[in-house]
Amino acid sequence: MTADRPVRVCVDAVGGDKAPSEVLMGVAAALRALPDVSVTLVGPDEVVTPFADKHERVIAHPATETIGMDEHPASAVRSKKDSSIVVGCRLVREGEADAFFSAGSTGACMAAATLVMGRIRGVARPAIATVIPTAGAPAVLLDVGANADCKAEHLVAFAHMGAAYARRVLDVTEPRVALLNIGEEPTKGSALAIEAHEAMSAVVPGFVGNIEGRDVLSGEIDVIVTDGFTGNVTLKLLEGTSKTLLSQIKSEMTATPIRTVAAAVLAPGLKGLKARLDPDAYGGAPLLGVRGVCIIGHGSSNAYAVSQAIRVATTAVRNDLTNAIAEAVESPRT
Amino acid sequence: MTADRPVRVCVDAVGGDKAPSEVLMGVAAALRALPDVSVTLVGPDEVVTPFADKHERVIAHPATETIGMDEHPASAVRSKKDSSIVVGCRLVREGEADAFFSAGSTGACMAAATLVMGRIRGVARPAIATVIPTAGAPAVLLDVGANADCKAEHLVAFAHMGAAYARRVLDVTEPRVALLNIGEEPTKGSALAIEAHEAMSAVVPGFVGNIEGRDVLSGEIDVIVTDGFTGNVTLKLLEGTSKTLLSQIKSEMTATPIRTVAAAVLAPGLKGLKARLDPDAYGGAPLLGVRGVCIIGHGSSNAYAVSQAIRVATTAVRNDLTNAIAEAVESPRT
Repeated sequence: MTADRPVRVCVDAVGGDKAPSEVLMGVAAALRALPDVSVTLVGPDEVVTPFADKHERVIAHPATETIGMDEHPASAVRSKKDSSIVVGCRLVREGEADAFFSAGSTGACMAAATLVMGRIRGVARPAIATVIPTAGAPAVLLDVGANADCKAEHLVAFAHMGAAYARRVLDVTEPRVALLNIGEEPTKGSALAIEAHEAMSAVVPGFVGNIEGRDVLSGEIDVIVTDGFTGNVTLKLLEGTSKTLLSQIKSEMTATPIRTVAAAVLAPGLKGLKARLDPDAYGGAPLLGVRGVCIIGHGSSNAYAVSQAIRVATTAVRNDLTNAIAEAVESPRT
Repeated sequence: MTADRPVRVCVDAVGGDKAPSEVLMGVAAALRALPDVSVTLVGPDEVVTPFADKHERVIAHPATETIGMDEHPASAVRSKKDSSIVVGCRLVREGEADAFFSAGSTGACMAAATLVMGRIRGVARPAIATVIPTAGAPAVLLDVGANADCKAEHLVAFAHMGAAYARRVLDVTEPRVALLNIGEEPTKGSALAIEAHEAMSAVVPGFVGNIEGRDVLSGEIDVIVTDGFTGNVTLKLLEGTSKTLLSQIKSEMTATPIRTVAAAVLAPGLKGLKARLDPDAYGGAPLLGVRGVCIIGHGSSNAYAVSQAIRVATTAVRNDLTNAIAEAVESPRT
């Protein structure tokens, strides 16, 4: 798209455990930081209209229904046509918005985006990607949960989509793509991994082969491809491990008064580290393979996570992520 | 077995990157610490005989061949009948030793133990378990790589075997067993996970349902069951994450002179933490489901890892792990 008009990001005002307050604060922060962005806020009239009245570049779009975190995604999407998630996806499809963000039910966002926006031609299975902090540059990991059972051809499409995301959103010129596996040799792994390795070797530009679990955080890979089961376990394990380790370190550091003093000296450094490891910085999880930019925040998204997601959505729109994915999937650059 | 004779642990003198020196030091340390253990050392005559001459409770058992880390496991085991790994497993089968330990090729150990010791009746697929440090008590994770592709019935057997290990080696009276999955509800996950959840609910004592990646280190579960692909990724990811985080913390802590001073104050606490997280403390990875105690060390095992593995092997023999697994698999306690 051209840069002469603002990017219009549609935001689900009632998605997430901390909605609407943190969502609204996040929108306000994003508007302050990003002068070329406008927001269409979807949700209950009494939430979205007063906010739009008070903020420039915000359009209120009332929606009467909400999809809860525990509803069955596909049935909720089919039955609640006027829910914030379904309406948001429809605004993108109809060209009223350029991107959609929600911190609501991941399943419902996936179902709505797939049904309402539609899939990009050549994409059998949209995938959820996530950007993870590593020892080096951040890496795109996908699929992290959209598809628990995959075929090799799906993994090949994930590789193309992840590489397009790395190029267009993370600004990596020649992404290095790897398959998450349990050995480095091409013949190692599950039947799926062996078949996917062979297929990816043939058609995925920048494919460097297998990496093992211990290399995920090495920073030497830009796109890590796996099935949605392994990817989801990987992502949640990373979150859990960081949390457990940092909390154990904290308790060691405050075990005695003298340690507490020493810890205070180190606090700025550890705070910097914690910030670098903060997944919120990368702005939620993009659903790749649908016809429009769709970013899904985790349920506990705070204002910072929301504003970063709006930033990422804007970059994805400006750099034409959706068409880049369509091109990568239809005619892989070899 | 009765406590009136020493446990005889057979050790592969030439297994691992640091063999034989670290292996021999580990054997010496184990003998000092464990008065009720004798060691049969298998390997080249010039390595094992001088060591046996100098140490009480060591029998040298020369073997003329060695299986390298990069050899095809099954073919190497078939062709090298006088390799330390094959000979070690044979000594267990023939009742000349009670347990076997090697830090050599994992694949070759698995193949040799399965072919030479044989499988326990009812075990279609032996599994490699590993004990991981958590925020609470250590947990048994299996399979971590023996079986990249699994069926639900294999996961059920893994659950029984892991629970037997927790009872007999980790001294957990009523192990809590969980399935690693990508959601807590029984209907979540891959086709394999859904089927395994149903089967485990029916027959596995202490089964508490699914856990997600973020709960692996919670310390609330004693036995975490998964297929060998997911388990291997999980284990290596845990290793990689701890390593990356601790190294980043170290570099933050030494970034300025004053931080280095403060870090020195905290050093004992962090050292204690590092020791608690050290997987070597749990003594290698037991291969469960074969007719004999078989412990596989990682290739980089040092003397401490070797001595801990001998300690664990001794506990497993004294507490009759092999029969406990046979009973658990044949007649699950419900």
